[in-house]
Amino acid sequence: MMGLFAGVFGHGGIERQVDDGAWLRALLDAEAALARAHAACGRITAADAEAVARACVPDAVDAEAIGRAAADGGNPVIPLVREVTRAVGGDAARHVHTGATSQDIMDTAAMLVARRAGAVILAEGAAATGALAGLAAGHRGTLMAGRTLLQQALPVTFGLVAAGWLNGVGTALERLDAVLAEGCAVQLGGAAGTLASLGDDGPRVAAAFAAELGLAEPLLPWHTDRGRIADLAGALARVSGAVGKAAGDIVLLAQTEVGEAAEAGGAGVGGSSTLPHKRNPVAAVSAVACAEQAPGLAATLLAAQVQQHQRAAGAWQSEWPALTHLLRVTGAAVAWLGTSLERLHVDPARMRANLDLTGGFALAERVTTDLAADLGRLPAHDLVRAACTEASDSGRNLADTLADRLAGRRTRDEIAALLDPAAYLGQAGEFTDRALQAHHARAAQRPRFPRP
Amino acid sequence: MMGLFAGVFGHGGIERQVDDGAWLRALLDAEAALARAHAACGRITAADAEAVARACVPDAVDAEAIGRAAADGGNPVIPLVREVTRAVGGDAARHVHTGATSQDIMDTAAMLVARRAGAVILAEGAAATGALAGLAAGHRGTLMAGRTLLQQALPVTFGLVAAGWLNGVGTALERLDAVLAEGCAVQLGGAAGTLASLGDDGPRVAAAFAAELGLAEPLLPWHTDRGRIADLAGALARVSGAVGKAAGDIVLLAQTEVGEAAEAGGAGVGGSSTLPHKRNPVAAVSAVACAEQAPGLAATLLAAQVQQHQRAAGAWQSEWPALTHLLRVTGAAVAWLGTSLERLHVDPARMRANLDLTGGFALAERVTTDLAADLGRLPAHDLVRAACTEASDSGRNLADTLADRLAGRRTRDEIAALLDPAAYLGQAGEFTDRALQAHHARAAQRPRFPRP
Amino acid sequence: MMGLFAGVFGHGGIERQVDDGAWLRALLDAEAALARAHAACGRITAADAEAVARACVPDAVDAEAIGRAAADGGNPVIPLVREVTRAVGGDAARHVHTGATSQDIMDTAAMLVARRAGAVILAEGAAATGALAGLAAGHRGTLMAGRTLLQQALPVTFGLVAAGWLNGVGTALERLDAVLAEGCAVQLGGAAGTLASLGDDGPRVAAAFAAELGLAEPLLPWHTDRGRIADLAGALARVSGAVGKAAGDIVLLAQTEVGEAAEAGGAGVGGSSTLPHKRNPVAAVSAVACAEQAPGLAATLLAAQVQQHQRAAGAWQSEWPALTHLLRVTGAAVAWLGTSLERLHVDPARMRANLDLTGGFALAERVTTDLAADLGRLPAHDLVRAACTEASDSGRNLADTLADRLAGRRTRDEIAALLDPAAYLGQAGEFTDRALQAHHARAAQRPRFPRP
Amino acid sequence: MMGLFAGVFGHGGIERQVDDGAWLRALLDAEAALARAHAACGRITAADAEAVARACVPDAVDAEAIGRAAADGGNPVIPLVREVTRAVGGDAARHVHTGATSQDIMDTAAMLVARRAGAVILAEGAAATGALAGLAAGHRGTLMAGRTLLQQALPVTFGLVAAGWLNGVGTALERLDAVLAEGCAVQLGGAAGTLASLGDDGPRVAAAFAAELGLAEPLLPWHTDRGRIADLAGALARVSGAVGKAAGDIVLLAQTEVGEAAEAGGAGVGGSSTLPHKRNPVAAVSAVACAEQAPGLAATLLAAQVQQHQRAAGAWQSEWPALTHLLRVTGAAVAWLGTSLERLHVDPARMRANLDLTGGFALAERVTTDLAADLGRLPAHDLVRAACTEASDSGRNLADTLADRLAGRRTRDEIAALLDPAAYLGQAGEFTDRALQAHHARAAQRPRFPRP
Repeated sequence: MMGLFAGVFGHGGIERQVDDGAWLRALLDAEAALARAHAACGRITAADAEAVARACVPDAVDAEAIGRAAADGGNPVIPLVREVTRAVGGDAARHVHTGATSQDIMDTAAMLVARRAGAVILAEGAAATGALAGLAAGHRGTLMAGRTLLQQALPVTFGLVAAGWLNGVGTALERLDAVLAEGCAVQLGGAAGTLASLGDDGPRVAAAFAAELGLAEPLLPWHTDRGRIADLAGALARVSGAVGKAAGDIVLLAQTEVGEAAEAGGAGVGGSSTLPHKRNPVAAVSAVACAEQAPGLAATLLAAQVQQHQRAAGAWQSEWPALTHLLRVTGAAVAWLGTSLERLHVDPARMRANLDLTGGFALAERVTTDLAADLGRLPAHDLVRAACTEASDSGRNLADTLADRLAGRRTRDEIAALLDPAAYLGQAGEFTDRALQAHHARAAQRPRFPRP
Repeated sequence: MMGLFAGVFGHGGIERQVDDGAWLRALLDAEAALARAHAACGRITAADAEAVARACVPDAVDAEAIGRAAADGGNPVIPLVREVTRAVGGDAARHVHTGATSQDIMDTAAMLVARRAGAVILAEGAAATGALAGLAAGHRGTLMAGRTLLQQALPVTFGLVAAGWLNGVGTALERLDAVLAEGCAVQLGGAAGTLASLGDDGPRVAAAFAAELGLAEPLLPWHTDRGRIADLAGALARVSGAVGKAAGDIVLLAQTEVGEAAEAGGAGVGGSSTLPHKRNPVAAVSAVACAEQAPGLAATLLAAQVQQHQRAAGAWQSEWPALTHLLRVTGAAVAWLGTSLERLHVDPARMRANLDLTGGFALAERVTTDLAADLGRLPAHDLVRAACTEASDSGRNLADTLADRLAGRRTRDEIAALLDPAAYLGQAGEFTDRALQAHHARAAQRPRFPRP
Repeated sequence: MMGLFAGVFGHGGIERQVDDGAWLRALLDAEAALARAHAACGRITAADAEAVARACVPDAVDAEAIGRAAADGGNPVIPLVREVTRAVGGDAARHVHTGATSQDIMDTAAMLVARRAGAVILAEGAAATGALAGLAAGHRGTLMAGRTLLQQALPVTFGLVAAGWLNGVGTALERLDAVLAEGCAVQLGGAAGTLASLGDDGPRVAAAFAAELGLAEPLLPWHTDRGRIADLAGALARVSGAVGKAAGDIVLLAQTEVGEAAEAGGAGVGGSSTLPHKRNPVAAVSAVACAEQAPGLAATLLAAQVQQHQRAAGAWQSEWPALTHLLRVTGAAVAWLGTSLERLHVDPARMRANLDLTGGFALAERVTTDLAADLGRLPAHDLVRAACTEASDSGRNLADTLADRLAGRRTRDEIAALLDPAAYLGQAGEFTDRALQAHHARAAQRPRFPRP
Repeated sequence: MMGLFAGVFGHGGIERQVDDGAWLRALLDAEAALARAHAACGRITAADAEAVARACVPDAVDAEAIGRAAADGGNPVIPLVREVTRAVGGDAARHVHTGATSQDIMDTAAMLVARRAGAVILAEGAAATGALAGLAAGHRGTLMAGRTLLQQALPVTFGLVAAGWLNGVGTALERLDAVLAEGCAVQLGGAAGTLASLGDDGPRVAAAFAAELGLAEPLLPWHTDRGRIADLAGALARVSGAVGKAAGDIVLLAQTEVGEAAEAGGAGVGGSSTLPHKRNPVAAVSAVACAEQAPGLAATLLAAQVQQHQRAAGAWQSEWPALTHLLRVTGAAVAWLGTSLERLHVDPARMRANLDLTGGFALAERVTTDLAADLGRLPAHDLVRAACTEASDSGRNLADTLADRLAGRRTRDEIAALLDPAAYLGQAGEFTDRALQAHHARAAQRPRFPRP
């Protein structure tokens, strides 16, 4: 990411795992592991493998030159191999890149980048879900208005709202974890996916290569079988979407007229260049801004599955920036959500005040349900609707309106009890507990793969 | 799908599972199951539940009227409930839709539609992967050119190519199977996701509702936690992509100048309105046409994850056509691939002839590898490249060119042996066997969920 | 669109222009026009052309049979030609489809569908922009809070807000109008785009064909040059986006806690199946639901530009459902916006009350600007920010806080004047007038092409 | 773009117009122009404006610090203003950013970046279309097979194929030119789009600001009316698509088995890391790789049109990387097409040989047309189809097969003449000339806006 925008779209630890240096490290790690795999199979000496590996460090190669030369062959591996071969020098140099094609190294590096970036996403995601769990537990009894189509509907608790965010983000991270653990495999097929140049040793070298890097060994080369990338795309976009949902809600709760939550960002944070009083929910807004880039990037990766024959003429290459940026914005979205939650100030009094704004409308369903036993559901619905319309049009209190219409059926006290939001929360507490329990179970389970 | 285009985009059994009738059935099944769930929990009598269920059949309701009236409330459930209530009549009518909100029924119906459409996709996918397995096994030893960037690279076998398609499509279907089995859950949360109107019975009714329909019971309502939909989108687009890859390759192999495969469609199939000699690979082309719609539809569903508060103002509703059409085109893509494979005529002689076109160029890597042991990899690469260039520019035979340049190092017979493609297939056979073995293991495992 | 969902996603007049019947009519119109074009060029008799044209009516052909048979050749034109040929009968039957390839008829029909659907979009768009102009003019002086990042920022007028919606939707429709007028061309190239079967008459027949249909004559056949479709995709998605912006704002203004606008839908409209008091902004929500499908569909069409050689193997065919549904949801979005505006109840008192909520915070910029002349911009910004923070933290009135901090610099009266929102509207009136003037100029200009 | 990949995805002159430096320059140019606009309106002295402008140079500010600090407010303008204010120093410092909000500067800078990047795209596009025009003119009479669904259909000329590419790319660039010339406008609205802080001077300052930068003056601020961005997205994706079509065809023509075109890249270009004989069409492949990223990025921008109230909470910010990368890949795609055309070696002999492969099948339509006059279209079609099938199945020559079936109707010489491809090119020459003429007319017209 460019420096000017890295503060926004590379927020948190993600940028260092997806930048140029991260890709270079991954490419070099793949070449080093390949040499060591040959050694592990007794095809070259350990000394030669280490000679190769010693040259596989960023400082030993000229990254700028590689970038420029990448244009000649259409990928950076060809010049990288020349650079590494030069850096190894001597006799061991002939053991660089043995048996591999450019795509073997690029794809393996992409998996390493995905794993390392994924580890950061999961770690920062754990912080965010931890904070969400704290909110859910802490506000298990905090009344607020549930809103459908942005209209107040029924009372809920802020604990349940946070539990919903927690479950959305938590299960999305769990799926990402599984994809990273099971789906990230080395690539080693040679020029046409047969490993022909390695003779009978192909499968053993491939297995050793996977073991060196801690990645899965694929059943067969996946040069043009991009299900792994598609799964990553889907899993990352799901995380982005779950984060975008939570962050978007925070933005809505922070509206001036709603005021149920605010980001207390401290000096200089969330300010405006012209409006001195503004306290913008910058972290939540930035999380949304990151998340909204994910679907288009995922679409690029999903479309890129249609790859020709044994190596694609364009679709494969199109994956590199799309996957890199999808990892970035997903990581930044998660990090921004964490930042937003760190700064979050929740206002239970305002939540209650907003819930009371409609004078009991949010309990209309409860009255309907109560009456349905006597009148049937539709007649009850119609009666309550008429009472609500009257109250709304006339400005009268709903309790009064209902009292008139229900004279003889319900007392004023019964009506008041029906209109008490705290008594009409259904399973809000139970659902909150379930989400927390699942969260703690997931937290206890990790990690699924060795983290860097 | 409109009738004019249903032959193309609703090919196979999928159309009947995603059309208007399928949705109506699913909505009614959800309402019937809800009534039975109440009965199962002892909240209403079995007789009342069956009275409701008897009205929950397409013939009992006026679908056109529902469609028109859907505009009033923004979804078809509101008028459906009125229709069903009317059709039930009598006292039992008050037990229609109890405890549910419109979204509960829509989302549950969407899951039923996904499951039923998914079952067709998996069944037709099993036929297609069966055919692919047949090709992989039958052509395990059929030599052909491996192609990278659409240039001949190394020899492979058609068996390996088919094995690659098989593994791509097979693992994508396996993932879809898992999502359908684990991810498809009922929705039951009531107006704001608390099940408040069901009092203490909420969880029991929800569990019974899930049991009635054979869908999973979710941890908590997922009105605005759309990870399930995102997973479906990802899994369906992955299937489409894997099919598009195979079908796209068939189209390339069927090119007039390549001629390694053809769809033998029989009378009237694959013809052109103007070109009497054309034998278009219509089935493969149609599979591609279906598959290419998937990424954009998946993007719509992934973007729709950002849903406000307890019910979204637009994003939720946008899922309906996108999910429906994504199921359709994925199903049609799979069915078209099956049709293409049924019609497929493979031409091993043409494969061999094409491989021989380049007079040994496809074996250049092998010569390089052989020489690398003596000369080092890069010098060997450069020597062979120069020989290839000379052969290509001069029209001389590569064997002759190499014989001159390798005089004293390799005999003509050694060079001829090096240039024999059948001896340079690496793990083509092994990888084919692995893919077949995995396919048979997957086939033995199914089904994961009760099929309709 | 399926009937169950047509009420939502095919709202207004659009459905009839994009359904099966509309496509069939367009295909038949193209065949009829082609025969007449031959007659106009003296290649066949007028009597024969009319014999063909008489058979080119939906009732004369079996649409279901065509749909089923479309699978054989991968498009509906091949069976359509057989049906029409049969329906013409006699000697004139040999003049059906002369010189054309299937794609000529499909593409020409697509342009007719786009034009006819576009005419409905423009007509319903004119109604919507007319309503927006009414709002802009009528509320030119209605004070409300301007909101950035959903936080109150500065005072604006509702007239200016409506003017912004008007300008966004109006200019988007203007662009669509231009694309429909200039970009919609007939297709006539024959099997490979050379019109070879028409000998020297090709260009004349193509010109006459275009004249018959009132479409543009292209410079050359555009079988695999899909810029026209890309432009349509861009223009339609722009309209959808502009509508989505306005409708999304209406949803936000209609929030229970904001209450500045509401859809007064009348009996049964905007109700909920469970919440009797709800008055959901169903029309605006539905507009958003339609608009949110556009970007993914546009992406499919933009990606489909990459078409092989003289006719694509999949990308072309993928356009049909994507273009059809993009026209549908754009049309429905526009129609829903119109419906929302018809129902819209604006509450100027609530707008003013909301603006007063922050006790002058929205005027903070004005105080800053006023002080900047004395203190410089940044010191002024910091002083006002500090005053706002104090007011916000302490609950004191901003006017009082400022009076303390500005003692000696500004009197209480000066501060009160600075905090009057009505005096700090800048160019709100001027910009409103400009938008109205441009609207009226656009309205006077139309129509750009003959409407059906 | 990261250095490692810049050689591929930032090919040509585009990278320097979209990198960090380009954005920083554009932001600073916007601030400098704003100060000068105030001076032009007599609101500040020319000396003060120049003092501001002198500080608006990349060297005067700390870009890294700005990038880091951008996270605080969610955009880089807030810290940029502080940096510039510091760099100006003295009394003139208070005239930095007067009247503007952060979005005014970001949006104006985005327009400058688009214009400058667009100028490079148009210039490199002119080179590419020039080369295409050369091919079209030079190969006006070069026979080749026209291919539909990748099957040989009818003869065309390579001149016509190149003319189709030319027209596709040329008209797409023309549309981009129009969008850049008319659609790129300054943004100046102040905090809520009213220019309130500038009092009565707002419109004059805005006009002067536009004049300073050579951008259009908008009718009203477009903070949340993103039609301009949508138009850019559509126009850029159209260019990418047109380039992808041409480049994709080059890749297909370069297939080993087709061999009608090749990229002669010179030493080291198009090589493979393992296959010494490979001459990959790397430039065309890279053009495709760039183009395939465009639809997803365009979808992000089209979706981002739905922006809330007076400034969006996420959608606006999401535009920055999407627009930047869309400009990049479109520019690189155009540059790669130019590179491919520079390297392109066309093989007319191979084109003719491929056309002869089918022994006259490509002329089947002509025979049909010839016979249709006697037999009617469908019987003629059926007779020729049967002859083709026989020839294909039996390996007999089509001419012989036809001679048997047409005995008494057509002589052998007549059949031979019918099967001569050179005599069945229809309007290939005419259409080529039209495309060339339109190209020259477009070339004469430019430039539409002042280029940097």
